Amino acid sequence: MTDVVDRVETGGGAGEVDVEELGELLMGRWAAARRHSRDLVKRPEFQREPGLPMPEHRKRVFHQLELLVEHGAVHRAFPKRLGGEEDHGGNIASFEEFLIGDPSLQIKAGVQWGLFGAAIMHLGTERHHDAFLPGAMSLATPGAFAMTETGHGSDVASIATTATFDPATDEFVIDTPFRAAWKDYIGNAAIDAKGAVVFAQLIVRGVNHGVHALYVPLRDGAEFLPGIGGEDDGLKGGLNGIDNGRLHFSGVRVPRTNLLNRYGDVDENGAYSSPIASPGRRFFTMIGTLVQGRVSLDGSATVASKLALAIAIRYANERRQFADSADGEEITLLDYQRHQRRLLPRLATVYAMSFAHEELLAKFHDVFSGAHDTDADRQELETLAASLKPFSTWAALDILQETREAMGGQGFMAENRVALLRADLDVYVTFEGDNNVLLQLVAKRLLSDYARRFSKPDAAAIAGLVAAQVGEVAINRSGLRALGQRIGDLGSTARSIGRLQSAAAQRALLTDRVETMVGDIAGRMRGVAKLSPTEAAALFNANQNELIEAAYAHAELLEWEAFTAGLARVTHPGTRKVLTWLRDLFGLGLIEKHAAWHLINGRISGQRAQAITDYIDDRLLPRLRPHAQALVDAFEFEQAHLGASVASGVERERQDEARAWFAAQEAAGTAPTMEKKAAAPKR
Amino acid sequence: MTDVVDRVETGGGAGEVDVEELGELLMGRWAAARRHSRDLVKRPEFQREPGLPMPEHRKRVFHQLELLVEHGAVHRAFPKRLGGEEDHGGNIASFEEFLIGDPSLQIKAGVQWGLFGAAIMHLGTERHHDAFLPGAMSLATPGAFAMTETGHGSDVASIATTATFDPATDEFVIDTPFRAAWKDYIGNAAIDAKGAVVFAQLIVRGVNHGVHALYVPLRDGAEFLPGIGGEDDGLKGGLNGIDNGRLHFSGVRVPRTNLLNRYGDVDENGAYSSPIASPGRRFFTMIGTLVQGRVSLDGSATVASKLALAIAIRYANERRQFADSADGEEITLLDYQRHQRRLLPRLATVYAMSFAHEELLAKFHDVFSGAHDTDADRQELETLAASLKPFSTWAALDILQETREAMGGQGFMAENRVALLRADLDVYVTFEGDNNVLLQLVAKRLLSDYARRFSKPDAAAIAGLVAAQVGEVAINRSGLRALGQRIGDLGSTARSIGRLQSAAAQRALLTDRVETMVGDIAGRMRGVAKLSPTEAAALFNANQNELIEAAYAHAELLEWEAFTAGLARVTHPGTRKVLTWLRDLFGLGLIEKHAAWHLINGRISGQRAQAITDYIDDRLLPRLRPHAQALVDAFEFEQAHLGASVASGVERERQDEARAWFAAQEAAGTAPTMEKKAAAPKR
Repeated sequence: MTDVVDRVETGGGAGEVDVEELGELLMGRWAAARRHSRDLVKRPEFQREPGLPMPEHRKRVFHQLELLVEHGAVHRAFPKRLGGEEDHGGNIASFEEFLIGDPSLQIKAGVQWGLFGAAIMHLGTERHHDAFLPGAMSLATPGAFAMTETGHGSDVASIATTATFDPATDEFVIDTPFRAAWKDYIGNAAIDAKGAVVFAQLIVRGVNHGVHALYVPLRDGAEFLPGIGGEDDGLKGGLNGIDNGRLHFSGVRVPRTNLLNRYGDVDENGAYSSPIASPGRRFFTMIGTLVQGRVSLDGSATVASKLALAIAIRYANERRQFADSADGEEITLLDYQRHQRRLLPRLATVYAMSFAHEELLAKFHDVFSGAHDTDADRQELETLAASLKPFSTWAALDILQETREAMGGQGFMAENRVALLRADLDVYVTFEGDNNVLLQLVAKRLLSDYARRFSKPDAAAIAGLVAAQVGEVAINRSGLRALGQRIGDLGSTARSIGRLQSAAAQRALLTDRVETMVGDIAGRMRGVAKLSPTEAAALFNANQNELIEAAYAHAELLEWEAFTAGLARVTHPGTRKVLTWLRDLFGLGLIEKHAAWHLINGRISGQRAQAITDYIDDRLLPRLRPHAQALVDAFEFEQAHLGASVASGVERERQDEARAWFAAQEAAGTAPTMEKKAAAPKR
Repeated sequence: MTDVVDRVETGGGAGEVDVEELGELLMGRWAAARRHSRDLVKRPEFQREPGLPMPEHRKRVFHQLELLVEHGAVHRAFPKRLGGEEDHGGNIASFEEFLIGDPSLQIKAGVQWGLFGAAIMHLGTERHHDAFLPGAMSLATPGAFAMTETGHGSDVASIATTATFDPATDEFVIDTPFRAAWKDYIGNAAIDAKGAVVFAQLIVRGVNHGVHALYVPLRDGAEFLPGIGGEDDGLKGGLNGIDNGRLHFSGVRVPRTNLLNRYGDVDENGAYSSPIASPGRRFFTMIGTLVQGRVSLDGSATVASKLALAIAIRYANERRQFADSADGEEITLLDYQRHQRRLLPRLATVYAMSFAHEELLAKFHDVFSGAHDTDADRQELETLAASLKPFSTWAALDILQETREAMGGQGFMAENRVALLRADLDVYVTFEGDNNVLLQLVAKRLLSDYARRFSKPDAAAIAGLVAAQVGEVAINRSGLRALGQRIGDLGSTARSIGRLQSAAAQRALLTDRVETMVGDIAGRMRGVAKLSPTEAAALFNANQNELIEAAYAHAELLEWEAFTAGLARVTHPGTRKVLTWLRDLFGLGLIEKHAAWHLINGRISGQRAQAITDYIDDRLLPRLRPHAQALVDAFEFEQAHLGASVASGVERERQDEARAWFAAQEAAGTAPTMEKKAAAPKR
């Protein structure tokens, strides 16, 4: 705890941030696509109408999809020869902003064009593009992406739907063998979908070639085609503008050529072939083409978090509660230390998310545009997405909840947006890859990388165990933050680091933590190769929690590095100063959060750990507080985007009106005397 | 990390818990009232119909209230001479269980009988009881509790609605001076309420006597009475079966005798009198009568958490995902370490909440029945409620969210209950006392108590500053866990504590943390009495976050003590052993969570901190895992209470069906060969 006087040294007044430059930086490389979407979704017809019953909400969102087609807002990723632009980064950026209108709109658009359409594009070949993409693009064929089954969520490799080749008719026969194999949680499946990309075990001549995708017509009008049935998933915790449903198939026949055959084909003689020999690698290559779902969720979580903070910080800057004991004036919420502790570190987090997402999107664009599309690039992209998506979607829920609570009862009202956003975003943490499963994927790569660098055969065996738990994955070190060698002597170094606010010190601590955790786990698993499978599995399971924590630590490091890289691109001195404080708040916040680990491992002293907390409380929060409004103004939301009554200036109006009323009463001499100043009453 | 073999030592098989005895213990002193409510709300007519549009949901819940009256379920607290039972503990217990049907039902019943009816009872006198209670009790007069205003949420003392005495007509005139003074978030106000208890600044002969309550008729049929207006709060993030709304008053006149005059009265000559001389103490006495809202939220949060864990643990015990690398069998979710880490510590938390709530309810009953009703008793009750309500309502949100995520997509479906419960419970953390404000109240009492024990005048000055921030409160040490003297030498002691699983060690660490935090804050504020008001306020604000953390640490201690006391009442040896592990998981979990603090303050060594984590991972979780189902079975929910498809056994049926199908295929020799065992395909 430093002395009080320092607290009010804010390092300069408000107004130091160049909001325009910062806004441009945050808007990023695909600013035009984002602005196009923002211009659209601020129109009333694209906005959510809170309280619509589910059937009407679904209809409204379907109509919004039709409007998106009309406005040419959803074809950026598709082939130019079919009317698209082959702009993959811009496509995802524009989709992410649809969330501003209604997350149901964003996700339903994602189902139609990002999953159904993209699966045809990436898993199919020219004949499928010609036959099926125009309908998918125009919404003439609303489609479903029928992968997940009731009995197998994250474990896609184990789905039980079969597509068996029938040489007699040159067809595939699709079957659901039992209830657990019903497709479930499938967007568009309950009502709208006329076609589907169905994932099934491909069985040819008695051999199971693993999971493949087929194009399957689903409905004629409102009726299922013969052999197909389903159920409505009904009401959900959020996203009720989307008609999720279940599907099952009994002897449903499609032509052999409906197999989306880019990575596996059956010829007219009934012979299976694939450009990828290993079934495991083939599976992950196919699944990997769908990484854009994770990429877009990372960006959407960032957009939602920005909205919530823009609303809550505006309100906290206007709302007053409880009188100051010094002057009797009511205190603005954001002047309370606790309120700063609740909102400002989360503001720092969303800046990290924004910069990190921009890097992820660039990587995605490079791979999908073909600019940099090696195996290593693809794996790096997948690892990045598997790291950032858990971080940002969990952070979004945390931010939405804290902003909701920070607005008290106002935060619970639908008219103030945040509570409904939170309900919708809830499922982002478990769909398109359950966060805990994704982090295990990342952990496996961290262990493999560790094994490679230190030539530890055990680590490879360990990595194999992880792979067994989350499905077979090609092992590659790509996508990991270069950790350098283990900083063996950081312990003594960090103790004496005078300026923990230096980027180098933050990086050293964050990097070392990942490296040490991975090394410790590998060390504990030494000898695993000699254990029986049962013992080995038990040993692995005994480390599962820490393995996931290590992957999460790696994601934190990635976010911090992205924030630091983004910061380096700021030219305006005032903005740079403020953003440096914000980055320090993010970095030191991570170190504070994991202080126990750093202490246990001798990386920092107790005194240093306490100094971090004091530095946050006494320096960073008071310095950042005057800039909080500018930092959310840089998100460039207009009133129609925020869509929240409390963020419209109405709170300040109410406060002003109340103060004016009391002032007038005082001036007129009509104010009642307070009892304690009058004679004490007695009974 | 201990060796693997120890991990599977579970300390005995499952089935060791005497579920019946444990169930009885958890059901507690008011088991009959709880069971009466549970029998009612398992009927279809009391259950929530998910997806009902707001207007229909509101109507359904209103009708449910009528049914509650018919079933004699809501009059336990009222005077015997009016048909009640004067059973305050039983009344709250029975209300809490209404949540099982629908949280909207519980809260709307709470508005009618726990706020509107209870305010008439506790703030009014016999004439009000005779005139207004029968209508409130029978629901002939649906009522509103019109306290909170748009401009003043937690700061009730600053509300701006006025009730001015007019001696000419012997009436009070009620006015809303400006928009911020509209009553807001008021249950029943949008549609149903015909009457209201309105809180207003009582102005008599030019003197403001502070906030008082008056009975005000609101509507004649569906129309507001003259001078009254309002608005519907509209859709909320949850609890949409309740018609929250806004109210405003312009020159609304009520007879002088409508003042609820137990704590302040105006006689026929227009003279104000009160049995409590201090306006501040009078205010808190009046507000204090309404503590039952907080008490019942503590219990309701516990009921909701039990529901969610019963659902998620049943599912985790049946659901399988990913094959074991050893035997190829798919692994049950609850056998994963991470899944245990997610669910079992939360199960421990809900046990603590259950035992702690039972103590709170007993205290409440003692005070309100008059058995132990001194000032000290009332203040102890208020402090307990202000401690436990924040702990349990936040814990409930955490538990509801983690159980939702632990069920993946199933958790997001309305048919599985948890996502909707979470939406409803969201507002529990900010209504009936915002959690952050309540914790400041507790913190103030901790500081006052510290000052008294150590005769530190500064601490009293500090306490005064807190009081200024959260409103004037009578200072009393009651309700605090006796902290004993500061354990100065615990640091060296704890380092050598061999058995951190001993209750004494856990208590010492938890107690010392509260004590030290309070002492540290008091130390940092040394000399505050000599500062200017502005400097003093700044110094206080610089410690606000830690002050709230100290109060939260105190709440954790209370929960732990209650768990430990509850455990002592278990007679069955197996149950006792398992509950001891669960209590240890709770206690050590708290120490692990705050390990950085204990390390920084030299209370435990790094080695010891690591040992706690290892002990949880390697011993407690594996030991408890086989008993998880028994521990939720003891909550005594029937299927109709759980109301969740996944907790109905359907998941096990699906798994069994799938396994039987594969077994039959294998037996018939019709299973396809996996490609990797067949020849590698080539293109």
